[in-house]
Amino acid sequence: MNRYSFGVDLGGTAIKIGLFTDEGQCVIKSQIPTRKDNDGMFILDDISEYIEEVIRNNNLNKSDIDGIGIGVPGPVLNESVVLNCINIGWGTFDVAKALSERCGILVKAGNDANVAALGELWYRQSSNYKNAVIITLGTGVGGGIILNGKILEGSNGAAGEIGHLPLVYDETEKCNCGNTGCLEQIASATGLVRLAKKRLAEKKIYTSLEKYDKLTAKDIFDEAKNGDELAVTVVDESLDYLAKAMASIAAIVNPQVFVIGGGMSNAGEFLIDIVKEHYKKYAFGPAKDTKILLAGLGEDAGMYGAAKLVL
Amino acid sequence: MNRYSFGVDLGGTAIKIGLFTDEGQCVIKSQIPTRKDNDGMFILDDISEYIEEVIRNNNLNKSDIDGIGIGVPGPVLNESVVLNCINIGWGTFDVAKALSERCGILVKAGNDANVAALGELWYRQSSNYKNAVIITLGTGVGGGIILNGKILEGSNGAAGEIGHLPLVYDETEKCNCGNTGCLEQIASATGLVRLAKKRLAEKKIYTSLEKYDKLTAKDIFDEAKNGDELAVTVVDESLDYLAKAMASIAAIVNPQVFVIGGGMSNAGEFLIDIVKEHYKKYAFGPAKDTKILLAGLGEDAGMYGAAKLVL
Repeated sequence: MNRYSFGVDLGGTAIKIGLFTDEGQCVIKSQIPTRKDNDGMFILDDISEYIEEVIRNNNLNKSDIDGIGIGVPGPVLNESVVLNCINIGWGTFDVAKALSERCGILVKAGNDANVAALGELWYRQSSNYKNAVIITLGTGVGGGIILNGKILEGSNGAAGEIGHLPLVYDETEKCNCGNTGCLEQIASATGLVRLAKKRLAEKKIYTSLEKYDKLTAKDIFDEAKNGDELAVTVVDESLDYLAKAMASIAAIVNPQVFVIGGGMSNAGEFLIDIVKEHYKKYAFGPAKDTKILLAGLGEDAGMYGAAKLVL
Repeated sequence: MNRYSFGVDLGGTAIKIGLFTDEGQCVIKSQIPTRKDNDGMFILDDISEYIEEVIRNNNLNKSDIDGIGIGVPGPVLNESVVLNCINIGWGTFDVAKALSERCGILVKAGNDANVAALGELWYRQSSNYKNAVIITLGTGVGGGIILNGKILEGSNGAAGEIGHLPLVYDETEKCNCGNTGCLEQIASATGLVRLAKKRLAEKKIYTSLEKYDKLTAKDIFDEAKNGDELAVTVVDESLDYLAKAMASIAAIVNPQVFVIGGGMSNAGEFLIDIVKEHYKKYAFGPAKDTKILLAGLGEDAGMYGAAKLVL
């Protein structure tokens, strides 16, 4: 008899839901819109209805399902209580209990970045990494820390918030979090574009970056790959901070591996090579050889990791 | 029937050994010299003989002893294998097994800074902290991370090496570890004195620090307490880096509490207050209220924590 679990990745605009076998194969995958009206009060009903539908349409029984894992965009404690999900309107409540009461199935919850980290490791299960740090370079910089195969939540659910390492001492603008000089102000896709625009304003050399009306992180990486001097400098400066952050993380939790994902990681091995070069300079002796890999699951990592939560 | 354990803190010049009740009371405490000749090959025999003697002299039986915990000055894996203890001449071997074979008692080993962290928490057992980071400000900067009541060793035994966070970007000299710009180059007792001497050489104002032939960290703190302007600036600069490091640690592992110990912590609440002020600036929202406390056990923390390893 096959065993299944559902993985739910609750995002600000869409909810991704997958049905997984206990061996990590995704057999059904879909997404529904996130209804944010009325402080997100319909979200759990929508998820519950969709799950009931999948169970019915596939002639499954609830007893075939080990559980539902859900990744939410906010801090989570004890795999159940979400503390605040500002961008979907949720306050503090036991999301695992609330969804479980609707479906009659066991539910476990996790922070979306942490859950994505778990997904990446599950996907690499053959490699047997038990201690890993997953870094997501997107609009912000997210992180998930896995120790002994389990997500590190931290005492307020704020572990792995590596986007907010205070590393950029000469930063003058405020981060979304209210502090000044956070890693994500320079090493996220948004931060990279901001840095490029700053350097463009100061520039004294010709750069192909000038031709873009709406400059993106992808444009900057593409031009850096083409050898554009300013683009190379900007990528280097941004990833140098990321490498400093990784060296700090290594001196604190000493993982076996770093896995880098998120939209910016589409720059591929080009990005990884630059990060490795800078990381070697800063890492403490025993951590200099820590592996640095590109994420493999892309946008689906959260859904995979959520399913893994209940296995 | 009382249960006992031994706590052994193996240092570069002395070995501290204590006999503890299972409730954390130290009933016998002594120290013997560390014989470093012949690559430290007599050290385990010396410890074993001393322990046998304590057992005999106090009419105990080996069956009354739950075990021996030992803190060693190097990385340790799986509570047994020491990877390298350069300053006592040891290479890589199973120190727990080797000592256990000599005494016929269960032995567990840990890195000295990590074990001291465990000792500090044991001493504060009433406070029920399960997630804590202990920072030791001495000749270097050491750290110990306790998660769910257990030492975080890391994949190479190098977790908690917070003295080597690469935070001092304008540093020009090399750290003992070979890198440049490590936290301990500015926030250890040695680092503080080095910084004061640098600022003394550049100074344009009168400072009472001039009167010291052999300036120590204690002198600098004493003069800062007296309001000497240069001393105040130097202490502030040094502890600002410590606070940055703590904010990074908090964004990574999100502990309930920081405990600050080591020789430099003799500066007391004066030091803690300055650290708190800077920490608030840098810490990520949910971690801004993390407790920051002064260590309570002083030089005995390692011995306490070692005993706790086997309980």
